This record gives sequence, structure tokens and C-alpha cells, in this order.
Amino acid sequence: MALVALVNCSQLVTLAGANRPRVGAEMRELAIIHDGAMLIRDARIEAVGARSKIEALLNSDTQIIDAGGRVVTPGFVDAHTHLVFAGNRADEFEMRCSGITYQEIARQGGGIRSTVRRTRDATENELLAVAQKHARWFLRSGTTTIEAKSGYGLTVEAEMKILRVVRETEETTPLRCVPTFLGAHEVPDEFVGRTGGYIELVIDEMLPLVALHKLASFCDVFCEPHIFDQHSAGRILEAARRLGLGLRIHGDQFSCSGGAMLAARLGAATADHLEHTDAASIAALAAANVQPILLPGSVYSIGSRHYAPARAMIEAGLAVVLATDFNPGSSPIASMPVVMSLACTQMKMTPAETLTAATINAASSLNLAAQVGSLERGKSADFVVHEAGDYREIPYFLGTQRPAMVYAKGERVV
Amino acid sequence: MALVALVNCSQLVTLAGANRPRVGAEMRELAIIHDGAMLIRDARIEAVGARSKIEALLNSDTQIIDAGGRVVTPGFVDAHTHLVFAGNRADEFEMRCSGITYQEIARQGGGIRSTVRRTRDATENELLAVAQKHARWFLRSGTTTIEAKSGYGLTVEAEMKILRVVRETEETTPLRCVPTFLGAHEVPDEFVGRTGGYIELVIDEMLPLVALHKLASFCDVFCEPHIFDQHSAGRILEAARRLGLGLRIHGDQFSCSGGAMLAARLGAATADHLEHTDAASIAALAAANVQPILLPGSVYSIGSRHYAPARAMIEAGLAVVLATDFNPGSSPIASMPVVMSLACTQMKMTPAETLTAATINAASSLNLAAQVGSLERGKSADFVVHEAGDYREIPYFLGTQRPAMVYAKGERVV
Repeated sequence: MALVALVNCSQLVTLAGANRPRVGAEMRELAIIHDGAMLIRDARIEAVGARSKIEALLNSDTQIIDAGGRVVTPGFVDAHTHLVFAGNRADEFEMRCSGITYQEIARQGGGIRSTVRRTRDATENELLAVAQKHARWFLRSGTTTIEAKSGYGLTVEAEMKILRVVRETEETTPLRCVPTFLGAHEVPDEFVGRTGGYIELVIDEMLPLVALHKLASFCDVFCEPHIFDQHSAGRILEAARRLGLGLRIHGDQFSCSGGAMLAARLGAATADHLEHTDAASIAALAAANVQPILLPGSVYSIGSRHYAPARAMIEAGLAVVLATDFNPGSSPIASMPVVMSLACTQMKMTPAETLTAATINAASSLNLAAQVGSLERGKSADFVVHEAGDYREIPYFLGTQRPAMVYAKGERVV
Repeated sequence: MALVALVNCSQLVTLAGANRPRVGAEMRELAIIHDGAMLIRDARIEAVGARSKIEALLNSDTQIIDAGGRVVTPGFVDAHTHLVFAGNRADEFEMRCSGITYQEIARQGGGIRSTVRRTRDATENELLAVAQKHARWFLRSGTTTIEAKSGYGLTVEAEMKILRVVRETEETTPLRCVPTFLGAHEVPDEFVGRTGGYIELVIDEMLPLVALHKLASFCDVFCEPHIFDQHSAGRILEAARRLGLGLRIHGDQFSCSGGAMLAARLGAATADHLEHTDAASIAALAAANVQPILLPGSVYSIGSRHYAPARAMIEAGLAVVLATDFNPGSSPIASMPVVMSLACTQMKMTPAETLTAATINAASSLNLAAQVGSLERGKSADFVVHEAGDYREIPYFLGTQRPAMVYAKGERVV
């Protein structure tokens, strides 16, 4: 393939460094090259540096991408999404505006269960069309890699259908998709009062099939006292680990109920949500090298103001990740710049910290730090040309600026 | 001009009714036509109704716009913006993320003053280029009418320069711009300690020139104890009224300091911000028919959680308006859907109420209810085809969905 050169970047925000998550003050080190340029060959980055240095490497066939004096960053990595679901829940959004809580709606048969009913009814092709639409939303927001969870099926067949749709979305769109099995997202209607029976189904039937067909890289569990408690969540995750899956946990979303502690005990890759995680749990996560994935979009969307303690986590040396939690209930947000804005204004992270949390730290949490998350020789040419002259404008102009161009694997996709 | 028909709208959200602001339960009445259609001639709406009824009016030359089964609403009316300014303040945004307050930054010479310095230095052509860029941001977010304030000049020449740029933006872009003179936005550096002298300049020199050259429809004052107190603000606004200008007030943003009360006493068109307005002031606004313009984007962006009491205002019968407050400091947000989302999640307005507040109520506050703000015979053909099947998705999918098409005065602009 031809050589391609990206030139004329006011700031080439490389996030270059070791292929590992950044902690503490490292989260503010973006390795910015002013008037930078980048050489791309065969969908990979061949060289990154000052414009003059890169221009010396060009030949007469080199195709030039002119960034127009704009900011260039790595493509965002969104490490917690629910890509595949049928329908939306704008009706429940309206109910919440009227003061009904997310938990009350769930108790009335709404919430996750209502999406499960619709997702079960949808065909694989219908779900693929929706997932492809969602993939376009991610890409045009500058996200080139996502993690995508199942969890709106909750039968053997429906969970496998969703994971196949994740794989098909990866195959048919430019979006890189890392699949996670989240069969333990909720207890389905037909198992209400028989949670134990559903857990057996997850462990004895779903997980072996997921592993057999290599349908997921990770297993996740929604760990809350009224859903899957610590003991149950631990059983499921230990079974997943025996099958070779990495571990992620939804924990401490509505109370400090041991989700983060369980993640630390199991050495999970990530503990997600953590709105109510206390200091002891933060210390346990740090000791176990678990990455916290913070989801301010879901706090915002459900009308809560109880955001995760991001500053305490950064100060404790945790390699914080930000993600959208894109889903039809608690976070109908596919945009990482929106999440970065929420993190800045509501959690007092700096713009630099949010960018680290949205790229290299997120990539690390998916075991992809060697491929994506920074702009360095050998990595995939996934990058965004932002309609901005300074990276701080990305969270600053909320909902106003947009990526001017998005490239995934060296190809322009937006 | 040819006849144009818009067809295939899942919801044609007309907001039809009397050309006056909507109050109380009226704010939830959107006059939605399911499978609706609209006939347009010479940039104006000729008929609105069920598809079958409209299709009977077509002739063989009628151009068809296919909304693709999407939601159509009036173009948004953004009744409080600071369209014209040089530079941005992403640096101060970063400082606020680190916990420094908006007021502290202002005391250190940042804030409005720093934008004033840059705006004074910019040429009229440079400012026009920036304003045109901002106009594109508004249009692609679905906003077809804005109010645009001066206030970053604070000298006779610089204020007139800004108001000329507003007029030139209106003339050179499809965005309808209503100019407001806000010379009393801040006390400029050269008048610090001599506020009285600056007020004389505003009253004796700026206002007469504004009126002479018809550069503004409204006069606005930033009424806060440490800037322009009630007495000073009243003097400026009364002088403006004698010159035939309508009145608007920035009031009660940081304390309940009489801004709303002054608006009520003067019978102003609007009182804006009102984050700290108390029950007595709300009653006074109701009695005087002043429209409150709520600006949740600026509350969000400065990291406050003290939103205006929207529900109390709706219950008191106020014709609530939502606006972006687009400006480089406290609200770098040009998107009405973002503001509607904030109003839903943070102020507990319903999606329907936010849409009324963003269209017909906003138009009323600018004396434009006969021209824009609803889809009715005789009004300007300003409308948005949203990437949505239900209007509630507009605030629900924060930062994710976008207008598929935007028309202003019958012409497609996005």
C-alpha cells in the first residue's frame, strides 16, 4: 500500500510512552508534538515526529492528508458499551424527568427488562442493522475502538445472538469491537425469584458456549445486592476465568456493596461504575492493579449527581478509564467528548487526564495497548482530526465541535 | 418559486396555536401530527396537515422533501447568545477543572475581560469570519434563529463593531440574528473604580449611536451587585427604553440580588439566568409577564449544580424559555439539544416542555412569534428533520444524534 503522510497538525497529541496504563501525574503527560506529522503505511503508523523530520521521509507517491492546522489525537477507545439492543427507552427518560427514579422504573418492569423483551424478539439481521447504526454514531464521534457487552438477551440463544452481532459489526464496519459476555446483567422475567437457577444457566450453559465459539474476550457481571450479590458474581467470574476469559465487573453503582472489593480479590481487569466506592475499596483496587472505568454519562442521564470519586482514584494511583456506558436506559450517549466534558465539569478531571482516560488507559483495560490508544510507530493508524486548535477544546465546546476527519486502520471513515 | 412538499414525517411537531408564549400545562402541548406533511411556497409555510390532506394539494411540479420517517420540528430559536467574540477560553476551562471558580478567574483579570481584550484587537473582518463559523455551529445543531448580544467591546467603537458584525452575519448566512446591545456586560479595565463614568459612556454615547444606526432591537444589562447594581442597571435600561429598545436583563446569576425584581418593575421582555431567583421574584415576574430565559449550559460549564428553579417557574405560570448562553467563558455550547438535555436531567423539565421553551416561547421573547417558532401557515419555513423517530429522543441521545436536514427560509442549509 502507498505511503500516507498526515501533516499540518497544530497539536499532534500522541500519548506516546510505554504501552501500559498511565497513573497519577502521568495522566497529564500527553506527549504533544506541535506542528507534528505522521507517516502511515499499510494501516499502521510508521513514524511520528516534527513536520520537518517526517517530510524528509516522503517520496513522490506519498499521499498527503492535510489536517488544516487542527488538533489530532488517537481515536477514542470506549471501554464500556452496550452496543447491541433493540428499541430505545425515550419513554422512560421522560418518566425520569418527571421525578420517577431509575430503580422505580426497573421495579415496574421497565429498565433493562423492557429492552430484553424487545431484543429477544428482534432477528439477528435486525440487531445487526441497529448495531451498525450505533457503530456510525461511535465513529463520527471519534471513537474507533469499543468494548461491546451482551446482556439484553438473557437466554442461551439470545445472548449468543448478541455476541454474534458484535462480531458481525466488527466485520462489517470500521469499528474495532471487543466482545464481553454479560449474561449476568439482570435476572430475566422467567427466573424472578429463582436467581440461583439463572446463575446455573449462565455458568453451565452460556459460558461454555461463549468459550467454545470464542464469542467473547471478557466476562462481566452486574454486581449489586438486589441483582447478583458478591458471592454469586464471584462464582460466575471464577467460572469465566477457568474458561480463559478476562474479568470485568459492574460494581458499587448504587451503594458501596463490595463490587470493587470483589474485582480486587479476583484481580479483574476492570471495575466499572464505582459511584459509591469508598476509600478502602480504592486502596484495594490500587493494590490489585484493577483499572476503574468511570461512567459519568450514566450518572448524568439518570439525573443523579453522585459521580465516582475520580480525583481520589487518581491520587491513589489508579489508572482511570472513562467510557460512555452507551445503552438505551441509563446512558444513551455514544460520544466520548461528551463524557470527557462531564468528567471535567462534574468530576474535576483535567482535559489532559480525560484524554488519557479515553485513549491509552482505555486501550490497556482491553489488552490492546500495543495496538491502539496512542500514536506511535507500529500501532494501528486510528486517529481523529478535531475541529479545534487545542486539545482542551474537545471537552470545552460541549456538543458543538465535531471531528473533522476520523481514520480507522488507515482508512478515512468520517 | 416552486411549491415544495415535506412528506413522510413520523411526527410533525408543529407547536401550532396562538402566536403567544405558552404557560403551565400548555407547555406540554406540542400539536403533533403523526404521518404529517407540509407545503412550502416562497420560503413560507402554505399548509400543514395529515399527509393525505397535503398530498391532495400537490401539482406535478411540486418538489418533494422526504423526511424518511423522521421527526420534524420547528428550527430552534436560541434567545440568548454571545455570537461575536475573538479567541476562546479553553485555558480557563482547564483552570476551573482544577477547582478555581469562575468568579476567582474573573478577579484575576480573566473571564469576560480577557475576551474583551482580544475582541477589541480583532478587525471587523476577523470577527465576521468567527461569527460565520459560529453561525454554522448553530445551524448544524438545528438552530435557525438566534439573539446575539454585543458586550465584548466595551468601547463605543468596539461595541458598534460587534453589532455591525451581527448584522453582517445575518446578511451573509442563513441564520436569523436578532441584535441586542449589551454594553453593560462588564466594567472595562480602563474604568475599574469608575463604574459611574462607564455608565455615562453607555447612556450618553453608546445607546444613542445604537438607536441612530438601528444596530439593536434590545438592550441588556449584566445586573449583579459587583458589576452593575439594580440602580445602575435600571438607569441604563430606562435610557434604552426611551430610545425604543426592548429590554432584557442578566439577573440573579450568583445571588438573588434584585435582577428579576428589576425586570418585573421595568416590564422587561426577559429576565435571564435566574439561578438564584426566589419565590417572591418569581411571583413578580409572573405578574409583569416577563419571560424567564434559563441557561443551564452556563451552570453546567462553570461546574455549579445550582440550576434555576424551572419547575417553580412553570407552576407559577411563567412562559419559560431555554437558551444556550453561547459564549467563550461560562457556556461554550451552541447546541439547543444539549441545553434541552440539561433541562430534562438537571431541572426536571419534560422533553415537551423543553421543546416549547426552545421554539415558540423563545420566539415570543424576541417578538418573532408571528414569524418563527412553530410550523403554521404564513410562518417562515424554518424546520429541522431530526435523526429520530420520536421527539423525546432529541434530548435523550445527548451529543449522539444530529439533525439530518435543516431548512431556513425554505432553503436547505444542513
